[in-house]
Amino acid sequence: MAVETIKWDKGAIKIIDQTELPNRLVYLRYKDVKTFWHAIKKLQVRGAPALGIAAAYGVYLGIKDSCAKDYRRFKNELENVIKFLGSARPTAVNLFWGLERMKSVAVKNKDKKISAIKRTLLEEAHRIFEEDRDICRRIGDFGAKFIRNGDVILTHCNAGALATADYGTALGVIYRAKEQGKRIKVYADETRPLLQGARLTSWELMREGIDVTLICDNMAAEVMREGRITKVLVGADRIARNGDCANKIGTYNLAVLANYHKIPFYVVAPLSTVDLRTPSGRDIPIEVRKADEVTMINGKILAPKGIKVYNPAFDVTPAKLITAIITEIGVFKPNEIKSIR
Amino acid sequence: MAVETIKWDKGAIKIIDQTELPNRLVYLRYKDVKTFWHAIKKLQVRGAPALGIAAAYGVYLGIKDSCAKDYRRFKNELENVIKFLGSARPTAVNLFWGLERMKSVAVKNKDKKISAIKRTLLEEAHRIFEEDRDICRRIGDFGAKFIRNGDVILTHCNAGALATADYGTALGVIYRAKEQGKRIKVYADETRPLLQGARLTSWELMREGIDVTLICDNMAAEVMREGRITKVLVGADRIARNGDCANKIGTYNLAVLANYHKIPFYVVAPLSTVDLRTPSGRDIPIEVRKADEVTMINGKILAPKGIKVYNPAFDVTPAKLITAIITEIGVFKPNEIKSIR
Repeated sequence: MAVETIKWDKGAIKIIDQTELPNRLVYLRYKDVKTFWHAIKKLQVRGAPALGIAAAYGVYLGIKDSCAKDYRRFKNELENVIKFLGSARPTAVNLFWGLERMKSVAVKNKDKKISAIKRTLLEEAHRIFEEDRDICRRIGDFGAKFIRNGDVILTHCNAGALATADYGTALGVIYRAKEQGKRIKVYADETRPLLQGARLTSWELMREGIDVTLICDNMAAEVMREGRITKVLVGADRIARNGDCANKIGTYNLAVLANYHKIPFYVVAPLSTVDLRTPSGRDIPIEVRKADEVTMINGKILAPKGIKVYNPAFDVTPAKLITAIITEIGVFKPNEIKSIR
Repeated sequence: MAVETIKWDKGAIKIIDQTELPNRLVYLRYKDVKTFWHAIKKLQVRGAPALGIAAAYGVYLGIKDSCAKDYRRFKNELENVIKFLGSARPTAVNLFWGLERMKSVAVKNKDKKISAIKRTLLEEAHRIFEEDRDICRRIGDFGAKFIRNGDVILTHCNAGALATADYGTALGVIYRAKEQGKRIKVYADETRPLLQGARLTSWELMREGIDVTLICDNMAAEVMREGRITKVLVGADRIARNGDCANKIGTYNLAVLANYHKIPFYVVAPLSTVDLRTPSGRDIPIEVRKADEVTMINGKILAPKGIKVYNPAFDVTPAKLITAIITEIGVFKPNEIKSIR
């Protein structure tokens, strides 16, 4: 059974605090949108699909106690909540996808009583949650067809159960292939600066009994050269119309390396990650985060005081370096993304 | 003035303890070869050229109190010391170069009294030390010709003053170019797992007033894609006959990225790094180090207990990805290395 990364629990959003893993498995409950915004910002909850769910329940948290008597005032409050939540993570499109979906449900039900609209919004959030579970399974089915017995897969950051409401996207493919009886090994990049690979991917793969080896990000080239890797599988935070994919910093590095070593490079993500309004990777805003994520670990400074740091949280892998994009409705060449729907 | 990374000081080897940087500038004095072996192993002293000097003074520490009365016994002790020191770091050829040079001096002087041989060995170690200072300056002169005003240089690990007896190899080129009045910026990879870039390169470049920006290793691709980098300069731990270069893990990664982004990639190293007896990179032994270098920082564990880790300390950059190799006698194409001498 996959871990319960995010769920609605008696009037609150219950999440695993991913900043505490792998040392402690801590659950947190959030009852108001302001503190939940910090949870998103601090990456206590993270991963593109999970952020879609977080957006949906976050919107509900933000409006459930609204005293608005008419729709116009309610809509005003709703829009403020949506804007507020969107400011937490600018790159992840699933966040905006979740927010927009909640908004359109409110608009569609605007003639109902405010209390009924609130109920409908909670139901919509539940629907997004349930859909994500189903999407993970369908992605797993499509993706597992590409996995052969004996494959050794390199992955980056965490596109697993801890990034979704079920067993993940890139890691979901691996779990599904394992269920089919295929023997698989995984190399996990530690994923600096926040070490999601070391802390989260290693943890969940070990928990699922999958043979995983941890490496530093800069070892991927050597590991490929030694012939240890047969496929690269990563998630995505936003897929542009032309098939360019934004994902955790270091993904583009891997794509260049995979290309050089002639290793297939797959992006695994739900359709909610596709943003047809973004023409290409150049149009994706890249979140630049604080210097101390790079210079400090566990509260201790690792670099000279005052050192200048550049800390982009994401990079963009151009379509031409991507073998295929695996989604819940099938597998696409990057240049086919624009014709979806 | 460059820092005093390693020197002979009143009967002892005095080094900066590089595991304490950048937080504290601590000098250590070693008076016996056994504890000095651990200093090399623990990387308190590191960097290919500095290891050549460490080897030389280390040999002297190992034999200076020998009670051998005849050359045969003395040579036996000397060979044991040499074998012992060589076991500390298998990849760095400068260590072996220093050891061999000391041995050949002993052989050349075998007819002298043991006390005279000991004196000659100390003089030879001093000579290696002085030569390294001179080599750094000459490398700086040759290399600085390639540096243009406004260049932005990416470097990896530490090939600076902290790796030599003077102002370094790759960083020496930068210091020399700066002395010539050229405006230069540097991006320093943090260099996981031991963070030599974050701890050492950042520290010494800031100290020398050079504009340096720290990035995580996996950000180099994005930084190159954004057009921020005009040249890559790295050191080397061993250069094979065919021009393949072993250097700190992550160097090969950078070379693949530089090739993809059409950025010149220079290796900067003294001739003592060239090993004509090693035909190609495939023949270079790669030191694989302990898992806890990857899983622990500052004594705190970052990954799940029991996680499997692969931790190669070096990788090999094939000759075809190297623009040129800058040495103290000139600049060579990798395929010209075999005809040196």
